[in-house]
Amino acid sequence: MLRDRNKILIETIKRLLRRGALTNLRKIVNKTHAADLSAVFGSLAFNDQIKLFNMIKDIEKKGNLLSELDEDSSIQLIEAIALDDIVEVLEQMPSDDAADLIGRLSEEKSNAILEKMKKEGSREVENLLTYGDDTAGGIMVPDFIALKEDTTARDAIKSLQEEHLDVEMPFYLYVVDEYGKLVGVSSLRQLVVVPPDTPLKKFMETNVFSVHTNMDQEEVARIVARYDILAVPVVDDNNRLVGIVTVDDVIDIFRREATEDILKMAGAGEEFIETQSVLRSTRIRFPWLFVSCIGGVIASLIIGYFSGMLSKMVYLAAFMPVIAGMGGNVGMQSSTIVVRGLATGRINIRDIMKVVLKEISIGFILGLIYGLIISFVVEYRYSIEFLSLAVGISMACSMSLAALMGSLLPMLFARAHIDPAIATGPFVTTITDIVSVFCYFQIATFLLGI
Amino acid sequence: MLRDRNKILIETIKRLLRRGALTNLRKIVNKTHAADLSAVFGSLAFNDQIKLFNMIKDIEKKGNLLSELDEDSSIQLIEAIALDDIVEVLEQMPSDDAADLIGRLSEEKSNAILEKMKKEGSREVENLLTYGDDTAGGIMVPDFIALKEDTTARDAIKSLQEEHLDVEMPFYLYVVDEYGKLVGVSSLRQLVVVPPDTPLKKFMETNVFSVHTNMDQEEVARIVARYDILAVPVVDDNNRLVGIVTVDDVIDIFRREATEDILKMAGAGEEFIETQSVLRSTRIRFPWLFVSCIGGVIASLIIGYFSGMLSKMVYLAAFMPVIAGMGGNVGMQSSTIVVRGLATGRINIRDIMKVVLKEISIGFILGLIYGLIISFVVEYRYSIEFLSLAVGISMACSMSLAALMGSLLPMLFARAHIDPAIATGPFVTTITDIVSVFCYFQIATFLLGI
Repeated sequence: MLRDRNKILIETIKRLLRRGALTNLRKIVNKTHAADLSAVFGSLAFNDQIKLFNMIKDIEKKGNLLSELDEDSSIQLIEAIALDDIVEVLEQMPSDDAADLIGRLSEEKSNAILEKMKKEGSREVENLLTYGDDTAGGIMVPDFIALKEDTTARDAIKSLQEEHLDVEMPFYLYVVDEYGKLVGVSSLRQLVVVPPDTPLKKFMETNVFSVHTNMDQEEVARIVARYDILAVPVVDDNNRLVGIVTVDDVIDIFRREATEDILKMAGAGEEFIETQSVLRSTRIRFPWLFVSCIGGVIASLIIGYFSGMLSKMVYLAAFMPVIAGMGGNVGMQSSTIVVRGLATGRINIRDIMKVVLKEISIGFILGLIYGLIISFVVEYRYSIEFLSLAVGISMACSMSLAALMGSLLPMLFARAHIDPAIATGPFVTTITDIVSVFCYFQIATFLLGI
Repeated sequence: MLRDRNKILIETIKRLLRRGALTNLRKIVNKTHAADLSAVFGSLAFNDQIKLFNMIKDIEKKGNLLSELDEDSSIQLIEAIALDDIVEVLEQMPSDDAADLIGRLSEEKSNAILEKMKKEGSREVENLLTYGDDTAGGIMVPDFIALKEDTTARDAIKSLQEEHLDVEMPFYLYVVDEYGKLVGVSSLRQLVVVPPDTPLKKFMETNVFSVHTNMDQEEVARIVARYDILAVPVVDDNNRLVGIVTVDDVIDIFRREATEDILKMAGAGEEFIETQSVLRSTRIRFPWLFVSCIGGVIASLIIGYFSGMLSKMVYLAAFMPVIAGMGGNVGMQSSTIVVRGLATGRINIRDIMKVVLKEISIGFILGLIYGLIISFVVEYRYSIEFLSLAVGISMACSMSLAALMGSLLPMLFARAHIDPAIATGPFVTTITDIVSVFCYFQIATFLLGI
C-alpha cells in the first residue's frame, strides 16, 4: 500500500536525519521517486527539507519534486534556494510546470527568475504565463510532434529518432499544413504498422478533436475523459497548433475540481488543503458563515415573534432543532445529488422539472415516515393534545420543502451560470432553518389554537 | 462547449424522430461518437433508444455506447435486445467492459449470454468476473503486449504489425521471462529510437511498477496518478503478468470515488446518480436520517429538561437555531476539509494532533467573532441583562466544540479503518446540535441565575 510505503520511508529518513548519516541519506534520496519524496517532505522540518533537496543530484528530479509539493512548501523552498540553482531546475522542467511554479511566486522573485532564464526557455514559459491559469492555454505543454502531411512514415520515424527526443508524450503525431494549422492526427503505432513509404495524409485521421487556448480547463478535461484520448491538441485563434494537454494533467484537474466542489458545498470556499495558515483559513470560511448567521438572526426574529405562544406552551421549543435539523439534512442530500449530478453530466439543466419532482417525492415520503416516528415520540413523552400532530405535520412539511429547495436552487443557479456548488451547504441549511421554524409555529398556532 | 453540442444533437435527433426521417437518423447516428450518443440517450424515450441502437451499424460502437450509458439504461437496453445481437456486441468489446456489463445483469440472463459467447472470448470475460469488482483484477484488460527479453527491437515492431493489432493501449511493451513473469518494460517509442538489432533486455526498464490482482482499485488509481504513467501492469500471486489497468479507467475511478465521497458526506450513502427510482433513493437515504432523528430526539429531551428555565425566559429559545446552526456549519467545514484531505493524501493520519489543533484554532477565532456579532444583535433587540453574554459565549463554545468534533471524528474513524466520509454530514451536525443546546442552557443557567 502507498500509505505503508510512505510511512516506512518517512521513518527511515527521519532516523537517518537524527543520526546525521549523510551518505546513506544521499543514497536513499537519489534512489527515491520524486512523487514519493514529496510525500516525505510534508512530514519534515523546513531545514531538513532544504538539506534533502540539495542532496538530489538529478536536476529533473528536483523539478518534479517542486511540482509535486503543495503550494506553500514549494514557494518556501524556492525562496530559500539560490537563484542560479532554481533557474537551472526550472529550465529543465516541462514548461507548463515551470510556468505554474513561477506564477505562484512574488512578482519580484518571478521577474528575477525570468530574466535569468535563457532566452528560448524563458520565452516559452513567458508565453504560457500569458494564458489564464485555468484555461487550455495555461495547462498545455508546447512539446508536441507536428509533421507535414506529405511526410512518409519512414521520415516520421526518423524525425522521432533525431528531433523529438524530449517530447513528454509522443503517442500522437499531429499533422499540420504549411501555415501550422492542424489538419489531422496519427499515432506512433500507425507509423510502424503502415508500409514505410506511405505519406501521413494517406492514413491520418482528419476528424481530430481540438480545443481552443482559452477553453476552461474543466471542459478540456471532460473532453479528454469522454473520448478516452491520451492528449488533446490546443489551437489558437487561427487554428494553429500551439500545444497539447495530456491525460496526466486531466487527472489532476478532475481531482482538484472534485476537491473544490466538495469544499464549496461545505462552505469552505476555495480553501485548498494546501493552506497551512490558520488566519487564511479563517478568512476564507468567514463569509460563508456570515450568510448562515444572518439566516439564524432571521430565524430568531421569527421565534421572537411567536414568543407569546411559546410562553404558553414551552414544550414547543423542544422540537425546533429536530424539525429544522431533519429538514436541513434532507436538503443537503438533495442539493448534493443535484450538484454532483450536474458536475458529472448525469443531470441535465433541461430536466429541471423531472429532477425537482423526484426530489420532492423522496422528501415527502421520508417526511411522512419521520413525521410519524416523531409523533409517536412526542405522544409518548408529553401526550399533550395536538402537540404530536403539530410536530409530525411540521416535520413532513419541513422535509418536503427542504428537498424542493435543495434541488431547485442549484438547478436555478446553474441556469443563471452561477456555480451550483455554492448553493448548497450553509445556503440550503440556512433557508431550511428559517422555513422550518416558520412552518412549525404557523402549524402549531393553527392546531393548538394558541 | 460540450453542453451546447449535446443540446444541438439532442434537438436534431428528437426532431428527426418526430418526423420519422429514418434515413437522416441513420446517417446522423452512424456519424456520431458513442460517447455523444450516450448523452443523447438519456433524453430519449425507451422505444426511441431501441430504435436508434438498432440503427448503429458498427458493432464496436454499439459496445461503446452500452459501456457509456448509465447502469439502469444499459441493463434495460440489453434486456430488450435479442440474445444473438447482444452476444455479438459483447464479443467485440474490450473484455473488462464486457465483464462489467454482464456483471450487472440478472444471473439468468448473464448465464445465457456467457453460454452463447464463443469459447475463447467468454473464458476471458469469465476470468475477469472471478475478481472482485473494485480490484485491479476486476478493472484490468487482458490485452497487452508481452515479449521475451531477447526479442530485438525489429522483431518487436514486426510483432506489433502482425499480432497485436487489437491491443487497446500499445504504448508500453512488457517484458516477461519464460514463465510469463514480469521482468521489465519498454515503450513503443524506444523501439523506434534504438538500433533495430538491440534486444529488449539491453534497453528495457527493470524497475517496473506493478500491482497485484486483488489491490483495491482506488489504490491502483493513486499509483497511476502519482507516477504519471499511462498504464500499470497487473500480476497474479506468482508475479505472472495477467493484465493492465489503463489511464482512462483511472480517470473513471477518481470521478466515481469523488462522487461516492461527496454523497456519503451528505448522508446520501451509496446513492449513485444512476438510480432513477424514488423508492430506492428513499431507502438509501433513510438510515442516515435515522441517526439524525435520534440525535434530534435527544436534543428535545435536553430542552425539555430545561423547560422550567425556558418558561421563565422564553427569549432563550429564539437563539437555539442560530447557535446550533453555526456550530453545525463550522463542524461541516472542518470535517469536509479533513475527509477530503485524507482522501487526496494531503492529510496524514499521523498528524492528528496538528490537524485537530488547527481546526480548533479556526473554530475558536470564528466563534469569538460570531459570538461578538450575535451578542450585539441580542443586546440591540432585547437588551436583557446577561442574555447577550450567554448567547455570545454559547456561540463561541458551540463553534469551537464543533470544529473539534468535525476534525477529530473523521481522524479517529480513519485510524479505526472506518471510512471517514460517513463521519461527516448528518453525523457531525447531529452531535453538534446536542452539544450546542446543552452548553447553551448550562451557560444560560449559570449566567442568568434561573
